[in-house]
Amino acid sequence: MKMVEEICSGIEQIRTLHPLVHNITNYVVMNFTANVLLALGASPVMAHAIEEVEEMVGLANALVINIGTLSGPWIDSMAKAVRAARDRSIPVVVDPVGAGATRFRTETARRLLGEAPVAVLRANGSEILAIAGIKATTKGVDSVAGSEDAREAAKELAKTYAMVVAVTGAEDFVTDGSRTAVIRNGHPLMSRITGTGCSASAITGAFCGVTKDAFAAAVGALVTFGIAGEIAARENPGPGSFQVRLLDALDAVESSAITECSRVALS
Amino acid sequence: MKMVEEICSGIEQIRTLHPLVHNITNYVVMNFTANVLLALGASPVMAHAIEEVEEMVGLANALVINIGTLSGPWIDSMAKAVRAARDRSIPVVVDPVGAGATRFRTETARRLLGEAPVAVLRANGSEILAIAGIKATTKGVDSVAGSEDAREAAKELAKTYAMVVAVTGAEDFVTDGSRTAVIRNGHPLMSRITGTGCSASAITGAFCGVTKDAFAAAVGALVTFGIAGEIAARENPGPGSFQVRLLDALDAVESSAITECSRVALS
Amino acid sequence: MKMVEEICSGIEQIRTLHPLVHNITNYVVMNFTANVLLALGASPVMAHAIEEVEEMVGLANALVINIGTLSGPWIDSMAKAVRAARDRSIPVVVDPVGAGATRFRTETARRLLGEAPVAVLRANGSEILAIAGIKATTKGVDSVAGSEDAREAAKELAKTYAMVVAVTGAEDFVTDGSRTAVIRNGHPLMSRITGTGCSASAITGAFCGVTKDAFAAAVGALVTFGIAGEIAARENPGPGSFQVRLLDALDAVESSAITECSRVALS
Repeated sequence: MKMVEEICSGIEQIRTLHPLVHNITNYVVMNFTANVLLALGASPVMAHAIEEVEEMVGLANALVINIGTLSGPWIDSMAKAVRAARDRSIPVVVDPVGAGATRFRTETARRLLGEAPVAVLRANGSEILAIAGIKATTKGVDSVAGSEDAREAAKELAKTYAMVVAVTGAEDFVTDGSRTAVIRNGHPLMSRITGTGCSASAITGAFCGVTKDAFAAAVGALVTFGIAGEIAARENPGPGSFQVRLLDALDAVESSAITECSRVALS
Repeated sequence: MKMVEEICSGIEQIRTLHPLVHNITNYVVMNFTANVLLALGASPVMAHAIEEVEEMVGLANALVINIGTLSGPWIDSMAKAVRAARDRSIPVVVDPVGAGATRFRTETARRLLGEAPVAVLRANGSEILAIAGIKATTKGVDSVAGSEDAREAAKELAKTYAMVVAVTGAEDFVTDGSRTAVIRNGHPLMSRITGTGCSASAITGAFCGVTKDAFAAAVGALVTFGIAGEIAARENPGPGSFQVRLLDALDAVESSAITECSRVALS
Repeated sequence: MKMVEEICSGIEQIRTLHPLVHNITNYVVMNFTANVLLALGASPVMAHAIEEVEEMVGLANALVINIGTLSGPWIDSMAKAVRAARDRSIPVVVDPVGAGATRFRTETARRLLGEAPVAVLRANGSEILAIAGIKATTKGVDSVAGSEDAREAAKELAKTYAMVVAVTGAEDFVTDGSRTAVIRNGHPLMSRITGTGCSASAITGAFCGVTKDAFAAAVGALVTFGIAGEIAARENPGPGSFQVRLLDALDAVESSAITECSRVALS
């Protein structure tokens, strides 16, 4: 399968090239995100000061913007970083954590999408519906809508902004407006620890750092992360142990596991 | 025992209803706090921007304010969030980390208590004595006073502010000014990792999200967390392993363990 | 060996005296740094508000400044804290994370060194070269230069600022301008998790909190941390498990392990 080979090649390239992923992300997940990227083989950097984001973006292979613990000064830095990425043709991943929960988050997510081209918008169903302006319910930063409910909205957003949209949930859905992929990897334990959505976005950034095809990057990231989650969930650990094993699995996951376990339906 | 049944029922309700606990807390413990709440079955959200705290509080079942890494703009958000909680009758837990260590923290803790009604003040002995205006020594954010030394001050504070005060230490003490509970659960390893006091406050928030009785909520939270700590400490792990097992234990703790292990003296 | 005895005595004193280490550090590593210090036996506190840093420094046995996720207001607090430490003769450790990656970081690192006396500058090779004004390449916050390339620059900086410089890498190098130590402890897994450089700086702060000899403190910290890393790496764990075991090893490391495993060459 071509897609599976591309995923394996992406993992290999991340482990060889160590793409630098510049994250402007939330306080809750910074440590875990950095460890996720390191476990996968990428090189993380976190920097949010308005004085340096432009320069830091210039060193990076991908930029990941996550609005999970937003505040005014951070939004200015995020916008500046996104514009700097545009000027240097560096791929941008946006994670609109909690869009729909508050107007502040919904509006910031939309502002970032309008600021400059985005390679991948990675979100849950509720966030996608909120950004699309469709009334949806959220529970804080957790999705109430399934990823299925947001598929049409995701396609529309993908077309409007000429970007890839990745909607994660029990099933993941990736679209660039014409192509679509449904991914059935992952494990329910992934929703029992904080930061798995944010990690999916960061890993998408790592894949974007080694391939120009943002659709393939998003699919590759979600399949890889999902399979790592399945491996980590073997023997049914508690959530604390699962978090540790997830990092171990990202480090250890091999092409054979991707080939055997990937469940992707393209159309 | 009525209290034990109430605790078991509280855990069950948290696992069924997944109360949304809005945390405005410190950078050090955000990740661990979120994972503690998820392991227990609650739904955490962190949001501190002045632009959105009011709206986020409106979605929450409880608000937990923790001053562990304070700064000016955060205090304004905390005060606004506490007032929003009052207007919507959402229970508030305050954790005055490091009160007594610096005037800034002592004054902020007092300001928050004066801002709007607080359901539970969860603190260590030194912090309680400092807020009560009794000269006490602290060592950074760690208590030098035992919880015993702060019991009278806790009772007075409980009466003054019509709130429940929970003083944690080798023995925990909970009072609403008339009722008191002494809890002898927990394990010394809990003081060998960061964020256990903050976690106790967050768990108190989760219990407040499913019961109107703040005294029962505080007792339930401290008994549950203490017993999880005892389970996690079996086989005498190192502090790194203990932290992982504590999350596993919060996820796995059963009514039978609460019934067998709880050591609460009410008066 | 005198140095080995001094290291063992330092560990013993940290476990007995629990020196309070005041950290103004980056968001990514705050939790891990606090747990590292607790595992070793020290007492961590994080406080960055301009309103309280001076008072908090006054309670501390050492101050650790880390510029990993810098912003304007934090720099002001760092400068104020460093001056307060000078006035109270409290040792200061500076960790110039990412110096050389952006001008903002290089200039802030230099400003801090000029603000007041620093006991130990703990950095990687690229950061040392950048601060010394020698053209070097960095990859975000990771060093591209080996610690060997930065040894002459480290000696010059040590003399210029009358401080100890500790350059970590595959081999660690410590100098006060005249004395030097080369340390061959540690394990490659330490670069597969985030925050090990920052932890080395924090542990250096703990050692500075119990000895007046900053050179011995830096050597002691790097040997202890390196040996803990070697212990944690036994059985070749994945990076998630390694992080957990590193905390366990810091808690458990005994004088016998230091005596048997330390690989320090003094000159």
